[in-house]
Amino acid sequence: MTIEIPSDASVPKVVVSRLSLYLRELQRLESAGQQTISSSQLGTLLGFSDAQVRKDLGCFGQFGYPGVGYRCDELILAIRDILGTNRSWPVVMVGAGNLGQALLGYRGFCRQNFSIEAVFDSDPLKIGQTIQGICIQHIDKLPEVLQAKGIRLGMIVVPVHQAQTVADKLLAAGIEGIVNFAPITLTLPSRVQQVSVDLAIELEQLSFALTNKLAKDLGESHS
Amino acid sequence: MTIEIPSDASVPKVVVSRLSLYLRELQRLESAGQQTISSSQLGTLLGFSDAQVRKDLGCFGQFGYPGVGYRCDELILAIRDILGTNRSWPVVMVGAGNLGQALLGYRGFCRQNFSIEAVFDSDPLKIGQTIQGICIQHIDKLPEVLQAKGIRLGMIVVPVHQAQTVADKLLAAGIEGIVNFAPITLTLPSRVQQVSVDLAIELEQLSFALTNKLAKDLGESHS
Repeated sequence: MTIEIPSDASVPKVVVSRLSLYLRELQRLESAGQQTISSSQLGTLLGFSDAQVRKDLGCFGQFGYPGVGYRCDELILAIRDILGTNRSWPVVMVGAGNLGQALLGYRGFCRQNFSIEAVFDSDPLKIGQTIQGICIQHIDKLPEVLQAKGIRLGMIVVPVHQAQTVADKLLAAGIEGIVNFAPITLTLPSRVQQVSVDLAIELEQLSFALTNKLAKDLGESHS
Repeated sequence: MTIEIPSDASVPKVVVSRLSLYLRELQRLESAGQQTISSSQLGTLLGFSDAQVRKDLGCFGQFGYPGVGYRCDELILAIRDILGTNRSWPVVMVGAGNLGQALLGYRGFCRQNFSIEAVFDSDPLKIGQTIQGICIQHIDKLPEVLQAKGIRLGMIVVPVHQAQTVADKLLAAGIEGIVNFAPITLTLPSRVQQVSVDLAIELEQLSFALTNKLAKDLGESHS
C-alpha cells in the first residue's frame, strides 16, 4: 500500500475534513470489532455517496481490495499517515478561561494524537494555577517554551479583542499553525497555517435546514 | 432584491458553511465602517476565489451592483435571511460539564441569534445549580420545557457513552435539529437534522498541512 500526497494546492480543505470523519467512523467500527467495510457502507454511515468516499481516498492511493472493501485497521493507519497524526503533536494553548479549561479536559485531542503541553495567559490571578496537571504560565514565556519543547501548533482561546495580539506573539515565537477559537479573522503571513473554529456555524447549518424545510412545508415563496 | 432558496438537496452543506464565513467577515467589515465590498476582496479575506464567492451567493439570488460590488448591510441581511438567523433561535443544551459551562458563556451564539434557554443534566449534584443565570434542570423535564418554550434545536455536550441516550431523549421530546459535541456518530431518523462538532478536526487540518509541507521541504517521497 503506497500513499501519495498530492501537492498542497490540489487537496481541498474539505477533502481533508472528510478524511477526519472517515477516520472517526473507522476507529468506532474497529473498536466494535468490525474488520472490513465497503465504500458504500462507510458513505451511508456518514451521509456521503460511495463515489465520494472512493474519490476522496483515491486522491492518496489505492486502499481497497476487490470483493472485500477496505480493511479498517489498514485504512486507519493510512489516513493517520496522510493526516500526519501517526506521530504525536504537542500543542500550546493561549487563554485559560472557561473554554480553555474545557479544552484541556477534551479527550478528543488525545485520541487523535494531539496533546496540550503548555498553557499561557496574561491574567496575574491565573498564572501559577494548575489545571488538569498543567501550570498556567505568563504569555511572555511563549518563545522559550515553544523552542524548548519543539512545539509548532497553537490554539487561541482568548476573548476576541485579544486574539490578534496573541496571534502576533505566537507568530513571533515561531508558531507554524494556529487554531483560532475567537470569532475574528486573524491577519497572519501565508507561511502560517490557520483554521478558525466558530461554534455557531454548526447551529447555522441547522437553522438553514429548518428554515428551508419550513418554507417548503408551508409552500411559501421565500422572497 | 429577491432571495430564492433552492431545494434542500441542491445546496451542499459546504456552501452553507461558507455563507456563515461570509457573514462573519461582512459583520466585521461593517462594524469597522466599510460600506461595500467586491467578490474578490471578500474572497481574498477568506482565502476563496472571487468566482467561488459569486457562485455561492448566486445559488440564492443576485446581490451585487455593477461597479460597486455588494453593499455590506444588504448582504448581511440577505445571508441572515437565507440562514434563517434573521429571527432568534432558542436552544436547549444537555450536559453541564466544563464544555457546557464554556458554551453558556460563548458570545458567538448570541451574536448570530442563538440563545441557550435551558440546560439539562442527570447529575443530582448539578441539578438546581445556576450557571450564567440559567438553572440546570433534570433531563426528565426535557419534553415539557421543549414544548412550553417552542424549542426546536438542541446541543449534546455529554460524555461519549451518554450521547446516544441523550439523543434518543431529545428525539422523543420532539427536537428537530441536534448539534453533537460528543465524538460519536449518532443514530437518528433522517427527519432530524444533525451536525457534529469534533474539536480535533481543525488540528488535523494543520497537521496535514505541516506534514505535507515538511515532506515537500525535505523532498521526501512519502510512502
